[in-house]
Amino acid sequence: MNVSIAGLGLIGGSLALALKTRHRVSGFDIDASTRDAALAAGIDVVGALDALLPADAVIVATPMAAIVPTLAALAPRSGAAVLLDVASVRGPVEAFAASAPAGCRIVGLHPMAGRSGSGFAAASAELLELRPFLVVPTVRSDTASMALAGALARDAGGEVTVCSAVQHDRIVAVLSALPLALASALAITAADTVDGNLAALSGPGFGDSTRLALTSSDLGSALLLANAPNVRAGLERVRAILYEMDRAIETGDVTAVKALLARAAEARRRLV
Amino acid sequence: MNVSIAGLGLIGGSLALALKTRHRVSGFDIDASTRDAALAAGIDVVGALDALLPADAVIVATPMAAIVPTLAALAPRSGAAVLLDVASVRGPVEAFAASAPAGCRIVGLHPMAGRSGSGFAAASAELLELRPFLVVPTVRSDTASMALAGALARDAGGEVTVCSAVQHDRIVAVLSALPLALASALAITAADTVDGNLAALSGPGFGDSTRLALTSSDLGSALLLANAPNVRAGLERVRAILYEMDRAIETGDVTAVKALLARAAEARRRLV
Repeated sequence: MNVSIAGLGLIGGSLALALKTRHRVSGFDIDASTRDAALAAGIDVVGALDALLPADAVIVATPMAAIVPTLAALAPRSGAAVLLDVASVRGPVEAFAASAPAGCRIVGLHPMAGRSGSGFAAASAELLELRPFLVVPTVRSDTASMALAGALARDAGGEVTVCSAVQHDRIVAVLSALPLALASALAITAADTVDGNLAALSGPGFGDSTRLALTSSDLGSALLLANAPNVRAGLERVRAILYEMDRAIETGDVTAVKALLARAAEARRRLV
Repeated sequence: MNVSIAGLGLIGGSLALALKTRHRVSGFDIDASTRDAALAAGIDVVGALDALLPADAVIVATPMAAIVPTLAALAPRSGAAVLLDVASVRGPVEAFAASAPAGCRIVGLHPMAGRSGSGFAAASAELLELRPFLVVPTVRSDTASMALAGALARDAGGEVTVCSAVQHDRIVAVLSALPLALASALAITAADTVDGNLAALSGPGFGDSTRLALTSSDLGSALLLANAPNVRAGLERVRAILYEMDRAIETGDVTAVKALLARAAEARRRLV
């Protein structure tokens, strides 16, 4: 089918590279050098957002803050095209869909994939391989548009999970936003504590635990702010567990400390 | 030289494997199957702790709780041997050294290395390669014993950093204990939040962030409890930063959220 992609960064670029073997893919990015890089990588690039239509599907893969404005620009003339978006927080898209022009179809298609790099230079088809793609209906989804989203997810190498916007945002809060928040708090605490001349001592454990602190502050702040109620509930829960741990340490309660650690190990084994 | 190792688990076993190419290494473990596995891997194994002496150096690499008792058993008859120990919290060894028999020499030799496996089966010389070895003097260290510790660290493939017990414990609290505490709190929160049927969605970010939750509860509780003052100070700092983040999210303060994330990214780049 004809698949258009708006935004050719890490996710949009990876989708373009993964889908172009099976579909006619056109892409647009507001950044001219990104367009040049995509063109050099064999992607058909157009010179304006408008030129992405007509299509069978348009995937909006801009930074979070631009997703709803881009959907709003495309929706009035989307015609038969299904509008998909990779927003990692569904609340704002849900709200937009509720007031979107009659007849347009909107489905969330969120690949749970990432790496520390960003932009088209970091994009690759492999990034998406076997990754979970969350397919999230809006009030503007129908059976055909949901099926199309699932097919594109599979064609991009992903594994499809359908969930509601509410489930999606609760999951992403604990799987993406909270890890970012904790990695950041840990990195700041460590830098405040460790003398400069001893900075080279961190090992793989600390490195892994703080890697997400390298998330761009644009993406990071969107993950935290656009999903505020779920993120705040998670932060409250984390702080309560850390307080419980602190109490057990203060009282030298080995049994309580070990019980918490055993519960955590079991949770980790279940989730990863 | 003649190097004896008490405790042939992940760290002791790795030290034995790394040092045996340059030194005559003898090892002892209270577990018979561990002794058999070490013997099969070409390490000279003795049948009792006492048989580790005489030697030029004895490295005590038992689990944390057994380190001071093992040092206490060896000290009275250590003779010319330098006693080294890999304790990842220095406070208890410091206290022991202050009342140790006259003439015995004790130096901390803590390789900052680990992996999720444990026991001799997970041991390998590569585990220690290029890892920081913290060489920590006690009141029972002298120039010769410090030099010997440094030489063994380098012979094991490590890179030597000398620091005081106070520095050591402050560093380990933020680089090892806090990451464990946060990984645990995150794993528990996620498991409490994510429906069972959506458990397969976690990606590499969440996986890396929670890997340390798989630390054995013996090692984990020792890291948290034996270093209580530093760990509690770190937990308080982390909770304060998370509170600050929560306030910024609550008030929708994009600038404050981005500033925190930028500070964290800079801290991460400096420390790793």
